[in-house]
Amino acid sequence: MDFTHSERSRELQTKVQAFLDEVIYPAEHTFEEQVKANNAAGTPFRTPAIMADLKVEGQSRGLWNLFLPHSESGAGLSVLEYAPLAELSGRSMALAPEAMNCSAPDTGNMELLDMFATDEQRAQWLVPLLAGEIRSCFSMTEPAVASSDATNISMSIETDGDEFVLNGRKWWSTGAMRPECKVSIVMGVTDPEADRHQRQSMVLVPLDTPGVKIERSTSVFGYDDGAHGGHGEISFTDVRVPTSNLLGPRGGGFMMAQARLGPGRIHHCMRSLGLAERALELMCERAMTRTAFGSVLAKQGVIREWIAECRIQIEQARLLTLKAAWLIDTVGAKEARTEVAAIKVVAPNVALFVLDKAIQTFGAAGVSADTPLAEGWAGLRTLRLADGPDEVHLRSIAREELRRYLP
Amino acid sequence: MDFTHSERSRELQTKVQAFLDEVIYPAEHTFEEQVKANNAAGTPFRTPAIMADLKVEGQSRGLWNLFLPHSESGAGLSVLEYAPLAELSGRSMALAPEAMNCSAPDTGNMELLDMFATDEQRAQWLVPLLAGEIRSCFSMTEPAVASSDATNISMSIETDGDEFVLNGRKWWSTGAMRPECKVSIVMGVTDPEADRHQRQSMVLVPLDTPGVKIERSTSVFGYDDGAHGGHGEISFTDVRVPTSNLLGPRGGGFMMAQARLGPGRIHHCMRSLGLAERALELMCERAMTRTAFGSVLAKQGVIREWIAECRIQIEQARLLTLKAAWLIDTVGAKEARTEVAAIKVVAPNVALFVLDKAIQTFGAAGVSADTPLAEGWAGLRTLRLADGPDEVHLRSIAREELRRYLP
Amino acid sequence: MDFTHSERSRELQTKVQAFLDEVIYPAEHTFEEQVKANNAAGTPFRTPAIMADLKVEGQSRGLWNLFLPHSESGAGLSVLEYAPLAELSGRSMALAPEAMNCSAPDTGNMELLDMFATDEQRAQWLVPLLAGEIRSCFSMTEPAVASSDATNISMSIETDGDEFVLNGRKWWSTGAMRPECKVSIVMGVTDPEADRHQRQSMVLVPLDTPGVKIERSTSVFGYDDGAHGGHGEISFTDVRVPTSNLLGPRGGGFMMAQARLGPGRIHHCMRSLGLAERALELMCERAMTRTAFGSVLAKQGVIREWIAECRIQIEQARLLTLKAAWLIDTVGAKEARTEVAAIKVVAPNVALFVLDKAIQTFGAAGVSADTPLAEGWAGLRTLRLADGPDEVHLRSIAREELRRYLP
Amino acid sequence: MDFTHSERSRELQTKVQAFLDEVIYPAEHTFEEQVKANNAAGTPFRTPAIMADLKVEGQSRGLWNLFLPHSESGAGLSVLEYAPLAELSGRSMALAPEAMNCSAPDTGNMELLDMFATDEQRAQWLVPLLAGEIRSCFSMTEPAVASSDATNISMSIETDGDEFVLNGRKWWSTGAMRPECKVSIVMGVTDPEADRHQRQSMVLVPLDTPGVKIERSTSVFGYDDGAHGGHGEISFTDVRVPTSNLLGPRGGGFMMAQARLGPGRIHHCMRSLGLAERALELMCERAMTRTAFGSVLAKQGVIREWIAECRIQIEQARLLTLKAAWLIDTVGAKEARTEVAAIKVVAPNVALFVLDKAIQTFGAAGVSADTPLAEGWAGLRTLRLADGPDEVHLRSIAREELRRYLP
Repeated sequence: MDFTHSERSRELQTKVQAFLDEVIYPAEHTFEEQVKANNAAGTPFRTPAIMADLKVEGQSRGLWNLFLPHSESGAGLSVLEYAPLAELSGRSMALAPEAMNCSAPDTGNMELLDMFATDEQRAQWLVPLLAGEIRSCFSMTEPAVASSDATNISMSIETDGDEFVLNGRKWWSTGAMRPECKVSIVMGVTDPEADRHQRQSMVLVPLDTPGVKIERSTSVFGYDDGAHGGHGEISFTDVRVPTSNLLGPRGGGFMMAQARLGPGRIHHCMRSLGLAERALELMCERAMTRTAFGSVLAKQGVIREWIAECRIQIEQARLLTLKAAWLIDTVGAKEARTEVAAIKVVAPNVALFVLDKAIQTFGAAGVSADTPLAEGWAGLRTLRLADGPDEVHLRSIAREELRRYLP
Repeated sequence: MDFTHSERSRELQTKVQAFLDEVIYPAEHTFEEQVKANNAAGTPFRTPAIMADLKVEGQSRGLWNLFLPHSESGAGLSVLEYAPLAELSGRSMALAPEAMNCSAPDTGNMELLDMFATDEQRAQWLVPLLAGEIRSCFSMTEPAVASSDATNISMSIETDGDEFVLNGRKWWSTGAMRPECKVSIVMGVTDPEADRHQRQSMVLVPLDTPGVKIERSTSVFGYDDGAHGGHGEISFTDVRVPTSNLLGPRGGGFMMAQARLGPGRIHHCMRSLGLAERALELMCERAMTRTAFGSVLAKQGVIREWIAECRIQIEQARLLTLKAAWLIDTVGAKEARTEVAAIKVVAPNVALFVLDKAIQTFGAAGVSADTPLAEGWAGLRTLRLADGPDEVHLRSIAREELRRYLP
Repeated sequence: MDFTHSERSRELQTKVQAFLDEVIYPAEHTFEEQVKANNAAGTPFRTPAIMADLKVEGQSRGLWNLFLPHSESGAGLSVLEYAPLAELSGRSMALAPEAMNCSAPDTGNMELLDMFATDEQRAQWLVPLLAGEIRSCFSMTEPAVASSDATNISMSIETDGDEFVLNGRKWWSTGAMRPECKVSIVMGVTDPEADRHQRQSMVLVPLDTPGVKIERSTSVFGYDDGAHGGHGEISFTDVRVPTSNLLGPRGGGFMMAQARLGPGRIHHCMRSLGLAERALELMCERAMTRTAFGSVLAKQGVIREWIAECRIQIEQARLLTLKAAWLIDTVGAKEARTEVAAIKVVAPNVALFVLDKAIQTFGAAGVSADTPLAEGWAGLRTLRLADGPDEVHLRSIAREELRRYLP
Repeated sequence: MDFTHSERSRELQTKVQAFLDEVIYPAEHTFEEQVKANNAAGTPFRTPAIMADLKVEGQSRGLWNLFLPHSESGAGLSVLEYAPLAELSGRSMALAPEAMNCSAPDTGNMELLDMFATDEQRAQWLVPLLAGEIRSCFSMTEPAVASSDATNISMSIETDGDEFVLNGRKWWSTGAMRPECKVSIVMGVTDPEADRHQRQSMVLVPLDTPGVKIERSTSVFGYDDGAHGGHGEISFTDVRVPTSNLLGPRGGGFMMAQARLGPGRIHHCMRSLGLAERALELMCERAMTRTAFGSVLAKQGVIREWIAECRIQIEQARLLTLKAAWLIDTVGAKEARTEVAAIKVVAPNVALFVLDKAIQTFGAAGVSADTPLAEGWAGLRTLRLADGPDEVHLRSIAREELRRYLP
């Protein structure tokens, strides 16, 4: 195991840190004001105007598409090299990742396209996505079934000549509400008679295709996540797309979903730890300056113990993330599945722990919008469900562990 | 310890249950729709129209002002008798308590008025509050200081002849944003030279007094709590009220705040457990009907263990709440302070545990507005801070415990 | 729910407290010295000589056989009345229960005999047990199978004319090693073809019957529990007893085991809480007198929070135990099964939490024999397995909870 | 961070694994039998005879004194290289470390001697210790004071001409009871007027010096740890040793204690994780073969979740230990203090978690001597206190974290 940062990664860390300090943090207030203004104007899903500027700046600083591992389309970084950059971007979760064209769900979609798209698909979708000109969403989860068991997915994709006909309903298509979102990668059943794990395929569906209807956006603990396009619930009624919109192999949906989630989970985890680090900073600063019962909070043993536990948990989670990243780089996502599952459970829970303690340290300000803590908490809580609930990942880990004791 | 429910309490339980089944639950959807409509209309702090009907119905069924313990103004119930009624009302936290004129912060304010108000003050404020015609707020917490240590409160209340002059800033004045909210009980420093715990007094301040400015409403995990009047941040600039607006004894603010919080905390706790019971029901129903990995969730050991732990924790928290109620009834809030502090810590945490497990069982639906779980969770999380953070209550309990070992 | 202590129970509480203060606590050191002397003499399973004196004293004070609920053979106390007495006795777990003839496993055995024994069986075994003249053990758990699932029990009890022939192996027959232990209640399969829950019966087996061989005593975390007769592993080889030794109905073993465990579990729980209370006292005393980093431990926030959490947890566990006791008294053990299962999980875990914190407060002294904490911890840890592991009880609670959602 | 194992370390891992498989595991039963025989013979502190053979074998395989980092006296391994070897040895905690001359407290003592001893001291004590011919103990903790705050240490070491005169009492001098233990490194106050952290010195005291009296051995959860020389409580009454027995600089005791504990803590942690790995193996094997309620335990969701959590926690703790080791190697123990403190808290708690779950999986067998779980648990529980309780390490971590927020 060698987690040493390459020179390139260290240079980029310095650059990302400078980008945060010089551009992102100073823009946070404006971003929030624009969100409020959009809400007041009845256009909650419009991207705050400042984001366009931030993207120009991110791109001009060479901090663009860093996420794509081992790919010519991206910066050519390994997952391990990207890890600390993703972590830094998580410190300003709402601004930095998108300003670097490194935000979900487009990152995962771009990875899929980079791996599986035909030349035509690349030209039509990957190129503008890499340029940050359009956005995309990913439609897998369905309201009617426990989608954590991917074999439950019921969206029907029938083949009719050279067309696919889609019928079904998806939700939590994050980003679907924003005007720039042009296409969804939709997972559904193309081959209902095939083997359980080979029934599903992924199909590219432009959102302006007839029969695609965005029904509503679901909220997350009171947040509509409008600045990032909300979470679309989309009905598909006799939606027809050419069979050339098939992404990757027919019947490969399950496999591709797994593949998509490997590095994507790592990215989420790193960003979560970045947010946790920022929360710990805020907590320490608050504890050093707020006085109760005759001394600053930082002198109180209980809060000191929280701080120590936060540091310990973050440290361990980061090391596990680095190991998972290093394994993906060296032996591949499949062989790294136990570590990826582990960090998928650990990172959000650690970050939630830190944010909860920070909230408690801040008192009522912590649950309000005056700190990034409450909104950050809500997003992290969702990560205990998104890409599979904790319990499904724990099952997988146990299965691997027990496998070696099979007779 | 005798927790036997009186016949009267049992009759009222039956009535409240019927009120829930026949009136409240069926109204929940309409209430939510009206909240959305108010938001869309740019009037988020208007009370949904259906509430007026619900209040008429609650009053006509004799389920009105049940909370006032040992008082002629109320139903004459003991705290123990009221406990199961409050719990039931918590099952529909947004509707039932207010429909029964038993919702915070008015309950605590009415208690204070019932105990301390002059005849004029009773006539002007208590009578319309008991009638549900107006609403009130309570202004104690300040943004600038750690208000969990009440001696930090800095609002200045100077005496100028027969007037008080208030200067300062309060926040988390819950309910202040709604048009019906007419008065605030404001805590501030009238006697800065007095003994630490006798510097503060409570003063009745009509919200239309010149110099009172509602600056904004703070949100809770993305919820503006608009249907209940939000959480007002209020500045007071040279606000003048007659000294006859003094509520209770001069210098008695600290003592009255403690008194206010005793039964009030119990009410919060009971309602929290009602919400926890409803969440557990929802979780069980979901677990019995949702299938993943080949069986309903209810067959999976991990979820069964959650259910058992929820049941155990709720059961214990309820017993502790009943004991605290019984103690308040029999030996008074002061002697019950350890049990009240204990239940103030236990009940929200238990309810949060149950809601978190319910959310996890529901998956993504759990964090959305499609169940009451996420919003309930946010409200409960706030209770770990409101009326004093957990840590302050734990301090008090330890101090009492250690007192008996003093030399 | 009425947990009010009867006058009789209050009088007995005073008496038990006096017995502890005047007799038991002063005898603890001697008891320990006699245990060491017995070990040094190679007779670790001999009862320390002082126990005989303590029993005389306990009996003379009228503190004898208090445990038998609703029975003429005992003190005629309800389970609720007995609860606080059992708790007090748990403060000196090694001495007080036996000195009052209220210690496991004899209490459970006496209950079974009281309910099911024939006149001959009563005369032969119950009378001397009630007199404290002999001791008994209970042989249910088997080393070869997961005995938490009682249907796994494999001990064979064949009927051969008017004799039973037993073959099999039991362990954790607590008390079997002491010379005074004369009889075991053995559970085994008499009717292998019957319905799953009706295959087993209980048979009285004098320990001097040919074929009964005590193979060894198992230890609990380094403790041999010699002063209470250790934990016997017993082999039964062609052991013949008359069929008149059948205790209760043939095929009734499973039902009787359940019945035995109901009140017995409550007794364990109450004693556990007594031990927890004593540990909390020791912790507080230590914290008030031990100095580190410039102040007594009791001034340190972390330890204060432990103390508060211990108090809260004990308080809740006690209330739940009282409720379970009250339910057994009023609706019977069967209807109280959820609460009994709940307290069986809660009480040992709460007591373990308290003891662990007390150990941590004491430092190295806490893990040694210089305090009762380490030995108490070991005994309590065993209670998370004895009479069914936590997980089995949680399963039962979940099953009951989910039952109401069955279609 | 580069945790890649060197070729040398990988070769040694293979050798240690072979040593375990071929020599150590097969010897465990004999070792236990010899412990029992020693107890029965009244010589509980005699080292089981087989240990001598194991040491010969360990030495002949080149697995000897591997612990000494960066030293010519040892194997010349870095701490990082040694880490996996220490972990492996922890799988058979009672046998392997001593068989490799890598067991506490001698390892720490040898490190001190290697760093600070004069030539005479090296010849007299270090050489036979490195040869495994004698054993040593470390006398720092005192029964009368909270020794976690090292400035509390009160042992008096007065200078009288060319002699030191020691008066005081120490306990938890692990290993002191065994006949081979010849010398103690005693920490005491030589310079009571000096600065708080410069009052103490370390002095070499042969155990046969007049005035040294081993009063007793303290036990750990019922275990006397006799096979490793118990835990001596030693009184020192006018004990005179030449001032040439001063180890290291006068007044350097505090600094040396810190230095001793750095790598020593890492060793403890790695061994703890080895024990945790073995417990997890035992748990999995048990779960795959034990049946309850109709299926093997390994099919039950709750136990699967335990297994997954154990794997995750071990994995994280190991990475943190490797980082701490790597830091000690690259920037020194002082700069690594936060990570060392962190792993000192994490590793024992993780291992305790794993062992507790393993015990629960085994049922009653888990608390007995039939598995290594209970005894392992007791030893690990002690590690939450030895070398400083968790709380002291958490304090240190918080202090470092908050330091960067000082104005």
